[in-house]
Amino acid sequence: MGKEKIAIIGSGNWGSAIAKIAGQNAARQPDLFEASRIPMWVFEEDVNGRKLTEIINETHVNEKYLPGIKLPENVYATSDLEETVKNATAFIFVLPHQFLGKTIEQLKGKIAPGAKGITLIKGVDVSESHINIFADTIEQELGISCSALSGANIADEETENFRVQTIGDVHGVSLCGALKNIVAVAAGFMDGLEWGDNAKAAIMRNGLIEMKEFTLEFFKDAKAETFFQESAGVADLMTSCMGGRNRKCAEAFVKTGKSFKDLEQEMLGGQISIVTAQDIHKFLKAKNRVEGYPLFEAVYQCAFEGRDVTTVTKSLNAKRPTNSDKTTQSSL
Amino acid sequence: MGKEKIAIIGSGNWGSAIAKIAGQNAARQPDLFEASRIPMWVFEEDVNGRKLTEIINETHVNEKYLPGIKLPENVYATSDLEETVKNATAFIFVLPHQFLGKTIEQLKGKIAPGAKGITLIKGVDVSESHINIFADTIEQELGISCSALSGANIADEETENFRVQTIGDVHGVSLCGALKNIVAVAAGFMDGLEWGDNAKAAIMRNGLIEMKEFTLEFFKDAKAETFFQESAGVADLMTSCMGGRNRKCAEAFVKTGKSFKDLEQEMLGGQISIVTAQDIHKFLKAKNRVEGYPLFEAVYQCAFEGRDVTTVTKSLNAKRPTNSDKTTQSSL
Repeated sequence: MGKEKIAIIGSGNWGSAIAKIAGQNAARQPDLFEASRIPMWVFEEDVNGRKLTEIINETHVNEKYLPGIKLPENVYATSDLEETVKNATAFIFVLPHQFLGKTIEQLKGKIAPGAKGITLIKGVDVSESHINIFADTIEQELGISCSALSGANIADEETENFRVQTIGDVHGVSLCGALKNIVAVAAGFMDGLEWGDNAKAAIMRNGLIEMKEFTLEFFKDAKAETFFQESAGVADLMTSCMGGRNRKCAEAFVKTGKSFKDLEQEMLGGQISIVTAQDIHKFLKAKNRVEGYPLFEAVYQCAFEGRDVTTVTKSLNAKRPTNSDKTTQSSL
Repeated sequence: MGKEKIAIIGSGNWGSAIAKIAGQNAARQPDLFEASRIPMWVFEEDVNGRKLTEIINETHVNEKYLPGIKLPENVYATSDLEETVKNATAFIFVLPHQFLGKTIEQLKGKIAPGAKGITLIKGVDVSESHINIFADTIEQELGISCSALSGANIADEETENFRVQTIGDVHGVSLCGALKNIVAVAAGFMDGLEWGDNAKAAIMRNGLIEMKEFTLEFFKDAKAETFFQESAGVADLMTSCMGGRNRKCAEAFVKTGKSFKDLEQEMLGGQISIVTAQDIHKFLKAKNRVEGYPLFEAVYQCAFEGRDVTTVTKSLNAKRPTNSDKTTQSSL
């Protein structure tokens, strides 16, 4: 078998972190990987009057998105997508989801036969009554096998100590990564209200159950164990609810009375965090299934329709009708 | 059917909180409960020169163990165990576990036929190679059916808003309540090291898995769902790892270098928190199964044998041999 040739599609905070790990790991296993030059595709921009690709290739630091962390010397930055993917056999998709569609179009017909991909893109692709994970989009559009990586990580923390476990549930892993954001907002509401660890833990538990039930309802091959036992499930949820950005914005939402839009601008530099709750609400509404997910709906209503956040714990009392109209037991 | 007559065996912090809830709920349902006088057994002691029973019966506040919280007027304190249980049909056991044996001896022959019990006693009864839950001890010794209550709660917080869900897994619920203490110590180590939310979440996830596996190995009728889905499992674990006493002591253990014994004296007024890790270690050693639970063992070794706490996350890499000698997959 030939060696794997890696192409990193993306170069933000998470993209740069994964480039460091991929570059190091390839260098350690030169029998398995084409390790001398690993291309990282950069959406070119000016940083203090210099091109970002130049800065990365001279200093080996992505000053803008992962400052202070040295990338290995075999990783090089390029703004040329075709060059990045030339002869590549192992694609790492790690770009903001809104750029995926256009990037896929540019990649069509330029992928080596037998190549495979892995996506680290956050979120899910929701359009009213359709929901899709990005791994499936990539598989369908590019005709390559694509897996997904998600789990407890914060890019700046993780580059020194990063472990990956493989499991068979691409849908479950992807939905964990998307839906935990809604639960983290609810957890942040509890922090904002200062209602204590019990209320927050109840929210997290019920949120994890709604995440699992949603995924099993709309992705028939997903597995409950992914949510309850895997790092991508319960551990990532805990991390997000203890320290994540959505949690932080939601806490500030309660304490300041400002809108999520303003807070995201102030606190996250414009990164959009609350959109998952809105997307999932629209999807559930189109499916006539809103009442099956009272916690998800409570988060949406508080963020966008002025619902009082002190009523969120009421969602824990709600009976959740299942899609087959059976009544499930109350969840707390 | 006659009305239920409640007897509360115990009057500490948790006992007083449950007395408040039981008194209120009985008063609301006088058709189901003998609601006019609900006895709470108090181990008599002097508080500022007065008897604790007198204080409680005059002020309706347990000044020593639940100060500032008003008990309902139908709850009365007595130091007479026989009077407490006379004609009682519904026993609430909520005393420190070291007093259970003697109390059971005093109760023998004094229990009305058909009575039932529920235990809120923390921990499990471990003696080298035997492990027993207190509900089973009560059933066997007193010949009454006994269930168990455990879950995310902190007595002072919960009296205004307390919900209970019944499930069929008495062993699972009881072991959740005991084993979470070991995991909370490990989580506290992470806080002491200031290693961030990812490391802590990984500890919590792996701890929950060890809790489940331990219980399924030694209590054949326990259910995995209790650990992953119920308040007694994942939610109580989260609460304990975010704010609990074991976590707090363990954090101080790392930061101060003091022994657990000293810290428990200083921080918990002598309440013993680390004993579960020691009990479970002895039990697993007697069963020759220590290596099946690397996180539990790491906590024990750090607390009692001088193991470096920075090595605790290594337990997450360990292969956990199962009892049947199959090798399970690595858990992170």
